[in-house]
Amino acid sequence: MQAGGGSSYKPRKPFPIDNGFGDPAVLRYSIHRDSHPTGKSPESNMNPAISKTLPAIGGRQLYDHFIEIARNRITTRQFDPDYEMPKEHYEMVLEAARHAPSGANAQPWHFIVIRDPEVKQEIADYFVAEQRLRASLKMKFPTPNYAGLATAPGFIVIVADFRYVKAFPMLKDDDSDLNKMYIENAERILLQSVAAATMSAHLAAAALGYNVWWVTAIGQQKAQEAMRPLLKVPDELAILDIMCFGPPLKEPYKRWKKSPEEIIHWDVFDRKNFPTDEELDIWIKEKRHKVMYKDASRID
Amino acid sequence: MQAGGGSSYKPRKPFPIDNGFGDPAVLRYSIHRDSHPTGKSPESNMNPAISKTLPAIGGRQLYDHFIEIARNRITTRQFDPDYEMPKEHYEMVLEAARHAPSGANAQPWHFIVIRDPEVKQEIADYFVAEQRLRASLKMKFPTPNYAGLATAPGFIVIVADFRYVKAFPMLKDDDSDLNKMYIENAERILLQSVAAATMSAHLAAAALGYNVWWVTAIGQQKAQEAMRPLLKVPDELAILDIMCFGPPLKEPYKRWKKSPEEIIHWDVFDRKNFPTDEELDIWIKEKRHKVMYKDASRID
Repeated sequence: MQAGGGSSYKPRKPFPIDNGFGDPAVLRYSIHRDSHPTGKSPESNMNPAISKTLPAIGGRQLYDHFIEIARNRITTRQFDPDYEMPKEHYEMVLEAARHAPSGANAQPWHFIVIRDPEVKQEIADYFVAEQRLRASLKMKFPTPNYAGLATAPGFIVIVADFRYVKAFPMLKDDDSDLNKMYIENAERILLQSVAAATMSAHLAAAALGYNVWWVTAIGQQKAQEAMRPLLKVPDELAILDIMCFGPPLKEPYKRWKKSPEEIIHWDVFDRKNFPTDEELDIWIKEKRHKVMYKDASRID
Repeated sequence: MQAGGGSSYKPRKPFPIDNGFGDPAVLRYSIHRDSHPTGKSPESNMNPAISKTLPAIGGRQLYDHFIEIARNRITTRQFDPDYEMPKEHYEMVLEAARHAPSGANAQPWHFIVIRDPEVKQEIADYFVAEQRLRASLKMKFPTPNYAGLATAPGFIVIVADFRYVKAFPMLKDDDSDLNKMYIENAERILLQSVAAATMSAHLAAAALGYNVWWVTAIGQQKAQEAMRPLLKVPDELAILDIMCFGPPLKEPYKRWKKSPEEIIHWDVFDRKNFPTDEELDIWIKEKRHKVMYKDASRID
């Protein structure tokens, strides 16, 4: 066993790996992984092949950087509208999305970069109308102010190709209950794949110092109809999310997060962190609007 | 505009931020962001409050580390079974999941760490049986060899609490078509939230030098019935994914990824990367099994 602080792990069956620098037969990944590159330009590595230098197993240098990024991925819903997003930052953010995993490696995603302020405004206007509709329906959801969408210097519309569900485990032309279950799972695989790519892009934006806004699951018919012609999205595809990023207009704040003890279970599920239906209803009524917008110190 | 290489961005309306070191009123985040922490222990930062040192806007030091991690998040389906996962690595990986965004900040997730080799084996056995079922159904899906699940040193079962859909925008006790659409979106928000947390955990594992395996969308009734009693998961919750991580048994390889040009669209959707239904069927028939298991250089 390996104590987590170093890179002393040796694989049971050392295998050769080609690092591009020498005879692959004599290189083992246990040695190889010790040589984490520093000062190397990512551009030299912009091809889809693996970087041949994997981090040392159990080494925490890269982890420490990563967790800093994960903690500082902060939502904001109003950006500095004067900031102009460099084109290369779109490319850098989407480079992260590109390497995400997906069911059957189908990569069922497209990313439309929106730079025209008028298009951003039209999309924002649609969501502001949706926000008013929700209020008129008395939905009681503390809908965020979608007007801030128009202020986002970085604006990417995320499009899913649901036709790829047939690339996942399911039967063709079969309407049995068994296959209904496979189809439901296939749709979930697709949604989770697109979310994985989107999350990777959000973390890349956070690494670049930006705040972010993930507008999720905007797949309703009306939203599709409003955005599709603006963006020339084919009817076969679904507009699924919007990712906004940029410097915030106001001081950003970290939202409340559940403690590790509330979400991590060792070996079996521990019911002490399982809310009853009634507790969940109370949470929605009394806490939800606070945790959506405030930090931990401000939850009473 | 800011050229992407530095941290010269100044916000339009500088705002004070408390970095814990002095008078908050005189600190502005533009200055503040220039001081990226190095050598700081993440433990000092294990509370849910924001790290007060955000990366410099447009600075690429953290991004360069991040993209290295994102590119080296490599799938393997057979691990070194002799490796014992340090408990703290589970905690470090799930610390990343904990900070993921979620609809209404509901954090509708639970993570069950499986350390008992017999439990891993029982879960692997279920999936091997599923693999045989798929073959007998003539599904033609190139199902991976699920026997490798039992070899995973790191094994986390990801559980979703779908009751939280009622915390997302929808109407109560309403079966209108409008509300059906809201409910569908709510389920998608929940699935994407859990996937965001899972992706963050996978990237943390990759940062620690591990290879990973995301077993997605295993929500079918039969899988739930097989795993629920083993893990004492309440009936109200759904077992959604399994995350495996550890050192690989054999040389890991990077899968084929679409090029940036195939997935990034500027301003409007560009139909040149839109496959027809026929092209998609051909891809499934002729390419899928290759891209699921081989790297770019091996696709013919």
